[in-house]
Amino acid sequence: MALYVEKYGGTSVGSVERINAVADQIVRTKAAGHGLVVVVSAMSGETNRLLELAGEFAGQTATRELDVLLSTGEQVTIALLSMALIKRGCKARSYTGSQVHILTDNIHGKARILEIDDARVRNDLAENRVVVVAGFQGVDVDGNITTLGRGGSDTTAVALAAALQADECRIYTDVDGVYTSDPRIVPAAQRLEQITVEEMLEMASLGAKVLQIRAVEFAGKYHVPLRVLSSFEEGTGTLISFEERNMEEALISGIAFNRDEAKVTLVGVPDQPGVAFRVLGPIADAQINVDMIIQNVAEDGTTDLTFTVHRNEYEPAMKLLEQAKMELGAREITGDDNIAKISVVGVGMRSHSGVASTMFKTLAEEGINIQMISTSEIKISVVVDDRYLELAVRALHKAFGLDSEVAPAGTD
Amino acid sequence: MALYVEKYGGTSVGSVERINAVADQIVRTKAAGHGLVVVVSAMSGETNRLLELAGEFAGQTATRELDVLLSTGEQVTIALLSMALIKRGCKARSYTGSQVHILTDNIHGKARILEIDDARVRNDLAENRVVVVAGFQGVDVDGNITTLGRGGSDTTAVALAAALQADECRIYTDVDGVYTSDPRIVPAAQRLEQITVEEMLEMASLGAKVLQIRAVEFAGKYHVPLRVLSSFEEGTGTLISFEERNMEEALISGIAFNRDEAKVTLVGVPDQPGVAFRVLGPIADAQINVDMIIQNVAEDGTTDLTFTVHRNEYEPAMKLLEQAKMELGAREITGDDNIAKISVVGVGMRSHSGVASTMFKTLAEEGINIQMISTSEIKISVVVDDRYLELAVRALHKAFGLDSEVAPAGTD
Repeated sequence: MALYVEKYGGTSVGSVERINAVADQIVRTKAAGHGLVVVVSAMSGETNRLLELAGEFAGQTATRELDVLLSTGEQVTIALLSMALIKRGCKARSYTGSQVHILTDNIHGKARILEIDDARVRNDLAENRVVVVAGFQGVDVDGNITTLGRGGSDTTAVALAAALQADECRIYTDVDGVYTSDPRIVPAAQRLEQITVEEMLEMASLGAKVLQIRAVEFAGKYHVPLRVLSSFEEGTGTLISFEERNMEEALISGIAFNRDEAKVTLVGVPDQPGVAFRVLGPIADAQINVDMIIQNVAEDGTTDLTFTVHRNEYEPAMKLLEQAKMELGAREITGDDNIAKISVVGVGMRSHSGVASTMFKTLAEEGINIQMISTSEIKISVVVDDRYLELAVRALHKAFGLDSEVAPAGTD
Repeated sequence: MALYVEKYGGTSVGSVERINAVADQIVRTKAAGHGLVVVVSAMSGETNRLLELAGEFAGQTATRELDVLLSTGEQVTIALLSMALIKRGCKARSYTGSQVHILTDNIHGKARILEIDDARVRNDLAENRVVVVAGFQGVDVDGNITTLGRGGSDTTAVALAAALQADECRIYTDVDGVYTSDPRIVPAAQRLEQITVEEMLEMASLGAKVLQIRAVEFAGKYHVPLRVLSSFEEGTGTLISFEERNMEEALISGIAFNRDEAKVTLVGVPDQPGVAFRVLGPIADAQINVDMIIQNVAEDGTTDLTFTVHRNEYEPAMKLLEQAKMELGAREITGDDNIAKISVVGVGMRSHSGVASTMFKTLAEEGINIQMISTSEIKISVVVDDRYLELAVRALHKAFGLDSEVAPAGTD
């Protein structure tokens, strides 16, 4: 008699057949005696269809109205799934974000959940109903419809699981779990039975796009056990846990990578207080997200400041640096948008030395030059030339003992 | 500085181009200094698309969920129209039925409006915004989404106009007003500048499907001036008024007709109290709507009871009568589903005799046999053989002086 919050993404509910398959699965879980709250996304393709419609009216700027529009996508899915359940004799009731009162701030398009009034859901659960909730959406204090941004349905599910103190929050998606690396690049990549929240955060932000990072943060904060599973095949998926793993397990959980970045460097800036702020302030003001920031020790009273941005924002970032260069009297600006970032991630490295040296040795053996290095407690990231990405990832995956004996099923 | 509530139906907002055209028109009205509340339907085809999706899950029975699904249709339109207005520099804000708190009863699929909280709308109007409201939908006291049934957007518009004491409620549609008869049948039919609510009610219920009958009733009850106009061409449309027209005007406003009916007769029932109820009670219990009911004086202690139902319900109605026939000891059951009902409608006939005799004389001259006659204060209806419908309508249109000198534009 457990209580599960289950989330089904767009491809999992992308057609009439898929919705029927999800309904069948829910009926099975229900028949096993468990309580169920189901969070669904818009049917795959629907959000893009609505965005295209909005584009006809230059709607990207009318953010309040865009949220009114986009929120219809999930509303269609909750109604259809509830109908499919009712048809199977399973009591069900749907709720929009507004109806179940997922209170958010009023930042349209990327609102954050403030509070959930779970009275209605608890009442339905007590009456043995499956509760079907629209993901991705909420309502602000003034009753305006808000959306949480792409992938926000994961956050909805975790927030509901936290509010209801559910036994597990299960994210059904089109992959069967979190892998040691991307199987498309590393055929020997393996599914992880378990991963810590911290590792997952590093993996997610580095490109293993299984879960929305905010959902993982939320799960970590409220200690919601989170499991990623495939809605297309049986399996136990990957559990995202809060406990340290057994010390005898692998040092490293996975090799993540990201080729969407570009690096820009301001060369020869005076080594004095306030420089970093004067460089990065205008970048932030221009809504450009910065990932890595590296500044090494100064020589001759000047230093070099390097940071990475999304590749799409390489040009505007370079332009903004022109201004900073003049103001600060820097020597020059350099940049490169043919880079890739590779990270080894694992809580195990906290208590083991040698991870960094293994990493650097492996890359050296492959003749790959390291352009930048940055570390945190549980990850080491390097920036290399884009063209060496696959080679580097495969070599590291092998070096850290992550390769499976045989190629895993379902990854071809 | 008038306040208008304008309603645009599905074909009026059926495409990106149409929504842009409506936005242009709204901007012009706004520029003339008027306050505007705009009620919109789902884009044409959208409701059917959603119904088809629901059909995949046998959703017609899950009425609560069907309302959750269908209400997304208008929600899409309010967002897109608001975006189109904002793009034109016109302040606008959209509201779902739930947001603007159109409180209804909880009869899903055909809910009735109980109350409208107009505080939000008034506030937006005071801030010079165009308020865009989703038609057809509301919310019950428990926060469940309801819909008002097909054509319910008209009712939403009239109810808002009543709550806001608007100067006029304008229903934009794909016809340019109310005609003296259907131009497809009577090429000489003319647009009426004005028609009374009572006449409109008779016209609407008899098949001139310009406006939803509930909307007209609502307008009559709350004395909302209602105007029907075309959203595709300029024109003053038809005003549905509350004043008696000038006596010098035509006796008759129009010739309405309906070929969707069938008649059933119970022959030779005992003339005693309770008979009509015992016949029609089971019909009502079976949710079959009855239109005309006729019972003439009894002869030999028995009488004949005839009523008309929708043609689709002819078979079930005949079956139900078998039971009544046995219980009441009636002689036989007869029926005919090849009939048409034709009505002459006009408040003028209240104070003029001779309308009925003109009608009967005209039909006689054409050799058309009258099967049934029923009258109200402002209409006379006859049932004739289906095949004479066009002939009868044209002859009556001419006889009552309704033919235009030249065929009106846009009716070919």
